[in-house]
Amino acid sequence: MTGDVPGSPGDVLTLIGSGSATTRSDLARITGLARSTISQRVDALIERGLVEETQGGDSTGGRPARQLRLHAEDHAVAGVDLGATHCRIALMDLTGRLLAAAEDPMRISEGPETVLDHVERRIHALLEDAGRPPTALRAMGLGVPGPVEFATGRPNNPPIMPGWNGYPIPDRFTTMILVDNDVNVMALGEHRNAFPEVAHLLFVKVGTGIGCGIVAGGALHRGAQGSAGDIGHIRVSGHDQAFCHCGNTACLEAVAGGEALARRLTDLGFSAETGSDVVTLVQNGNTQALRLVREAGRLIGEVLAGLVNFFNPEVIVIGGVLARVHEHLLAGVRETVYRRSLPLATHDLVIVPSRTGVNAAALGAGTLAIEHYLAPDNINRIVTC
Amino acid sequence: MTGDVPGSPGDVLTLIGSGSATTRSDLARITGLARSTISQRVDALIERGLVEETQGGDSTGGRPARQLRLHAEDHAVAGVDLGATHCRIALMDLTGRLLAAAEDPMRISEGPETVLDHVERRIHALLEDAGRPPTALRAMGLGVPGPVEFATGRPNNPPIMPGWNGYPIPDRFTTMILVDNDVNVMALGEHRNAFPEVAHLLFVKVGTGIGCGIVAGGALHRGAQGSAGDIGHIRVSGHDQAFCHCGNTACLEAVAGGEALARRLTDLGFSAETGSDVVTLVQNGNTQALRLVREAGRLIGEVLAGLVNFFNPEVIVIGGVLARVHEHLLAGVRETVYRRSLPLATHDLVIVPSRTGVNAAALGAGTLAIEHYLAPDNINRIVTC
Repeated sequence: MTGDVPGSPGDVLTLIGSGSATTRSDLARITGLARSTISQRVDALIERGLVEETQGGDSTGGRPARQLRLHAEDHAVAGVDLGATHCRIALMDLTGRLLAAAEDPMRISEGPETVLDHVERRIHALLEDAGRPPTALRAMGLGVPGPVEFATGRPNNPPIMPGWNGYPIPDRFTTMILVDNDVNVMALGEHRNAFPEVAHLLFVKVGTGIGCGIVAGGALHRGAQGSAGDIGHIRVSGHDQAFCHCGNTACLEAVAGGEALARRLTDLGFSAETGSDVVTLVQNGNTQALRLVREAGRLIGEVLAGLVNFFNPEVIVIGGVLARVHEHLLAGVRETVYRRSLPLATHDLVIVPSRTGVNAAALGAGTLAIEHYLAPDNINRIVTC
Repeated sequence: MTGDVPGSPGDVLTLIGSGSATTRSDLARITGLARSTISQRVDALIERGLVEETQGGDSTGGRPARQLRLHAEDHAVAGVDLGATHCRIALMDLTGRLLAAAEDPMRISEGPETVLDHVERRIHALLEDAGRPPTALRAMGLGVPGPVEFATGRPNNPPIMPGWNGYPIPDRFTTMILVDNDVNVMALGEHRNAFPEVAHLLFVKVGTGIGCGIVAGGALHRGAQGSAGDIGHIRVSGHDQAFCHCGNTACLEAVAGGEALARRLTDLGFSAETGSDVVTLVQNGNTQALRLVREAGRLIGEVLAGLVNFFNPEVIVIGGVLARVHEHLLAGVRETVYRRSLPLATHDLVIVPSRTGVNAAALGAGTLAIEHYLAPDNINRIVTC
């Protein structure tokens, strides 16, 4: 929506939450609304437990002005990161502060009923740890390792999630829940926590496969069908003999993904099944593994060089299992991007390993939930005055 | 800005201009502002000649409500499209209606003084044709065939614009002017006129060189340094012997741009210097030219296939000189995109020739000017109440 003079209950909450307004007078001045309207809206937000008002300090004499602030304490959101073999949960308050966290081994292939039962039990235990009642949970965000139809929260033909295709995840919970693919929530978690001031950011996950989360103008870009960022099947040159499970040849993922590297190491006589095994070999000083990771970095760099020309990001973050050996991976990425992209686009470009690391997805899923819950439209739905 | 209850003079104008509000009562209801505040803002907009109020019709009995509407008649904006060898100007009112247009041959290489003098004289003549005084001109948009620092309106090392590098175009005019590169204004012109309901669109210009304008979430995506969309230097496979003027090899533009095709036709013994000559040969039934254009379509398609996976657009528009033989060019593009992109991303993808054709850039430049002039922040600057 256009407009620099917001005025709905949701807008009032946004002004308080961001610190732009700390008193009723601030709100009246910023919005241009009548004092009576402001009072009505603030009272409704207090009644719903979203805002609290305290006796304040910085007055210019006379009675000190009462201070408004987000009442974060009575609320909680959960950010859930489901991987192929893990479940991480971050319990946060509405300001994004971490209250409690959990990490369990969990096979996504056990199917939605088993996995989501576990998620629900775990969230309840975390709420108890944090000393909050189950009713404090306002919203959940959930990242899954596969494509999702974001509007309905249903996985869409996810290759490594048997039993999940089309499963209506939101129907399973009474709490509001947003479901997205893992790379999108990772991009959001990394952006909001490590690069909040950056407008255009790419988060590249190099794990079993390769995917990318896109932040454009500060917001996630999901594209027309929600499939944006699927860079694992972009063609790289000189690898026409590499077959990909998608049916094409020379896909980036088929030559530079963790699974592809493990397969090539196996062919060379080393024991490796997953990207994690490749990382272990590199850490143990295996020169073949090191050579392959660096070469993978060059191939990823070839694809990113084109995307840098096209998208002109400020920051590229490399995450995922392979980022654990980021010095070797990034060397290859940087080498190719700086050679192949246009000087104007690389002049101030920053290419770095993920700062939020293994927590990127759970933090991002929680952020997704908070931002959706605090969005003016949602607050206006739950607060009427 | 957040907020679904706008209230500044600029917001009030936006509500009137979009047809969301046609009476003062509508404005009070939608914004939640007091009637007295609404009156103050509407009166200020009427005083500045931006809004007019007429006796209206659809009342529910009693005195008919007065109707508010954008007062487009006293205002004009100019959209200017400067190419290597042409100057097109579209004079429009604030609703985007075309008032008058001109097209002249003009060499951009004559330098900024000569070219911009011509532009100014031409706009004054068009205003006279349209029966409006010079003072009616509120804003100008200008598209140039090279990179521009959008914030300052200065061309940034444009290869085919001698004398323009760093030239402060806005200082040359007393009217507010926005300067952008030609592909961005083409994308905007095509989007607003032919695909206003589409969120994510790519406009690919295939002329002497190859560039792309990006519409993401309905807005132009310019990227961190304003260089987004520079796809002409993305690497294509199998052409490592093709040298590009940028210093790299195998750039898309070096093998599929109009100049590259003309050079290859010259090598084959045909007379061709420009993309336009290539088009003429194809139209005259030259099978070598036709073969090269189709092959160029395949190479452009190879790059676009990757960008479809990454960006997931709803629509790709092909424009520029080579789009005059779009049936051959598009055949190659579609063939490769549908073979190489992911099924989910191509399921509803539309690839079409430009509908606004040679007028895309002038219309887009005019749209850029209108949207900037009517933006709430700008209206708030010029209307105080």
